[in-house]
Amino acid sequence: MCGELNRPWTWIEGGVGAPQGFQATGVKAEIKYQDKYDVALIYSSVPAQAAGVFTRNQVKAHPLVLTQKYLEDGVAQAIVANSGNANACVGEAGDQAALEMARTTASTLGLKIEDVLVASTGVIGVEMPVERLAHGIEEAAQILTSSETPTWTPQERIENAHQAALAIMTTDTKVKELACELPCHEGVIRLGGIAKGSGMIHPNMGTMLGFITTDAKLPAAQLQGLLRQAVDQSFNMVTVDGDTSTNDMVLFLANGESGITPVEEEWLAFQEMVNSFCIRLAQEIARDGEGATKFLEVQVTGAKSLEDARKLAKSICGSSLVKTAMYGEDANWGRILAAAGYAGAEFNPSQAAIYLGECLVAQNGQGVHFSEEVAKGVLSQKEIKILLQLKDGEAQATAWGCDLTHEYVTINGDYRT
Amino acid sequence: MCGELNRPWTWIEGGVGAPQGFQATGVKAEIKYQDKYDVALIYSSVPAQAAGVFTRNQVKAHPLVLTQKYLEDGVAQAIVANSGNANACVGEAGDQAALEMARTTASTLGLKIEDVLVASTGVIGVEMPVERLAHGIEEAAQILTSSETPTWTPQERIENAHQAALAIMTTDTKVKELACELPCHEGVIRLGGIAKGSGMIHPNMGTMLGFITTDAKLPAAQLQGLLRQAVDQSFNMVTVDGDTSTNDMVLFLANGESGITPVEEEWLAFQEMVNSFCIRLAQEIARDGEGATKFLEVQVTGAKSLEDARKLAKSICGSSLVKTAMYGEDANWGRILAAAGYAGAEFNPSQAAIYLGECLVAQNGQGVHFSEEVAKGVLSQKEIKILLQLKDGEAQATAWGCDLTHEYVTINGDYRT
Repeated sequence: MCGELNRPWTWIEGGVGAPQGFQATGVKAEIKYQDKYDVALIYSSVPAQAAGVFTRNQVKAHPLVLTQKYLEDGVAQAIVANSGNANACVGEAGDQAALEMARTTASTLGLKIEDVLVASTGVIGVEMPVERLAHGIEEAAQILTSSETPTWTPQERIENAHQAALAIMTTDTKVKELACELPCHEGVIRLGGIAKGSGMIHPNMGTMLGFITTDAKLPAAQLQGLLRQAVDQSFNMVTVDGDTSTNDMVLFLANGESGITPVEEEWLAFQEMVNSFCIRLAQEIARDGEGATKFLEVQVTGAKSLEDARKLAKSICGSSLVKTAMYGEDANWGRILAAAGYAGAEFNPSQAAIYLGECLVAQNGQGVHFSEEVAKGVLSQKEIKILLQLKDGEAQATAWGCDLTHEYVTINGDYRT
Repeated sequence: MCGELNRPWTWIEGGVGAPQGFQATGVKAEIKYQDKYDVALIYSSVPAQAAGVFTRNQVKAHPLVLTQKYLEDGVAQAIVANSGNANACVGEAGDQAALEMARTTASTLGLKIEDVLVASTGVIGVEMPVERLAHGIEEAAQILTSSETPTWTPQERIENAHQAALAIMTTDTKVKELACELPCHEGVIRLGGIAKGSGMIHPNMGTMLGFITTDAKLPAAQLQGLLRQAVDQSFNMVTVDGDTSTNDMVLFLANGESGITPVEEEWLAFQEMVNSFCIRLAQEIARDGEGATKFLEVQVTGAKSLEDARKLAKSICGSSLVKTAMYGEDANWGRILAAAGYAGAEFNPSQAAIYLGECLVAQNGQGVHFSEEVAKGVLSQKEIKILLQLKDGEAQATAWGCDLTHEYVTINGDYRT
């Protein structure tokens, strides 16, 4: 985080409820499990400008299709999401269930149905228990409505938003929730977000659920551009298992309640804050990959183009052989070079150098003598940095992932039942 | 194998030594382990027409580069291969080691150096113990030369060729060796082959070591075409872990010693034999994937194009989530559809049906009620067939792979040391 030392913004406590005018909460609707938060509701007191990035999987979950449609006008006022059921591949019933989620949210909060965005995560191909879900949504909406008569303490706001973060978790072991604020001339802009990740995480697409809120005042088109470029260098650079879900999406709401439209220097600072925010949220997903014991950061420098750099970083970070080697704390740099070799990017292997942490293990495309002890020291850490240094150009990129472990196989050997 | 009932050829005992004029043997040169066959030598008594298909990994092993050069004239008389060391990414020393392999083989067998093809498999980035390797090659060559004075019984020929198959194994648990013959009007054409697979197996490239011999009389260009199309539907349809090696190659030698040039119907039968041969050899590789407990066959029918069908079959077969579900005997068909969705192929998910064995689990893109017991019965088998039935066209393809297991992680967590 040393690059952030001089950053103009600060991390603050809280999540999606941190920006002005946003409330969030989570409830236990027993979608799949008892006693687990599984319905999240995020609400803006005024209609917000809205942007979204979605899975490129040809098989799209029902809520995703509906949300894309409702996002066409660039306006939204609530996000409702559930875990425990992906609401994917169940046909007409799935479209109905997604619609019902939006309808219940809209009616209990008094919103237009097109201003409700819906998302689901969990097992594919199982019909949604719509009644339990609707009850959950009503309960959540009542909690949020009660908050409008300003009886919530700041701590209660934070706790309720935290429940929303809990409610979208599936096999995640840690809650992923961040907030930060940027001081501006006319006041403060806040950014809040929650995410879920863990399995079926791969860079080629939207790749997980992420909901981000801000009280900055921005038109939807600008918000969409901002989100797109942030996602490309954050969520899209994370890989857990190479699989891409049917449900992934990142949504971004800007309700303008700060009254501030960042321009010039403030715009640059805001953009930087959004990028750092998304990168940190994405890192949290990699760090909490299913069964992960180690966090991997793969940096590629000196690549011919940004696209090549990204392909190389993701290919190394996604290689089963690299991931198992890291799990086994084995300085098998040949697998790193081999994974770069099939990335589909152009580069000159004979000029490549590889570092594990600070330890140079290969240069000019071949191994160098290095201390196995020093390498082992690097690889025994919880966080491992791999650097592939090329001499083909100026582009660079970083990808994040985790090791491939026995526990990953255990988790995914029996997820459905 | 029911499609083979009326096939014009028959499987016979033996391997690369089965076709006339070919001898092969393996020796223990202590490249990495003691008491393991690790140097294979295949030799034709006359110069043979030669073809090859190679890894598309940008990082190419030293022997591969040399072999590609020596293959330019379409003629070869020997293949020398070692396991225990990939001779990859070691710079100038690697080029020298590959050259030394060819030189030793050529001088002890009395061949032109350009007629010797070299291959290596094993760990990347470690310098080859050239002296031990050269001793091994000399020993193997002496064994083969002694066979020319016809003192070997047919059984000895088979046993020696078998040692060549043993010598290219790494983490393979089973030897992969096949032979067959096609009766023709003027006699018999034989085909023999050995392969090694196990880890770093992925369809996008050459993907393993495979050496095939025949005594048919064919020009190199025709041999190359024959090999290319056979590899595309066999070795390139196998995936173990999505990783692609720096060393993969399939070589095909035709020495013409049968005196037969197959034409018309015999050509079609020969082509069919080569395809079936390569498919079976490739299946052996999938069946013996690192840590595999189950063999997966994924068939896609009704696809828009052959390319789409292949992409879909490989994507399903390569999905970590599908592979772990099969390991866990979990009928999680949603993962199958999701893996199809990110294959990069065009198809209509809402018309897709999925079968596990004979058990229909999804239709029109959504789940159907099926007996968990029947599905469990299918998934508890050692061989699992997955069928994705589309309605987008007439193309079909099949891919082969294996499940992702705890043992895979164990094997690859500490391979180098």
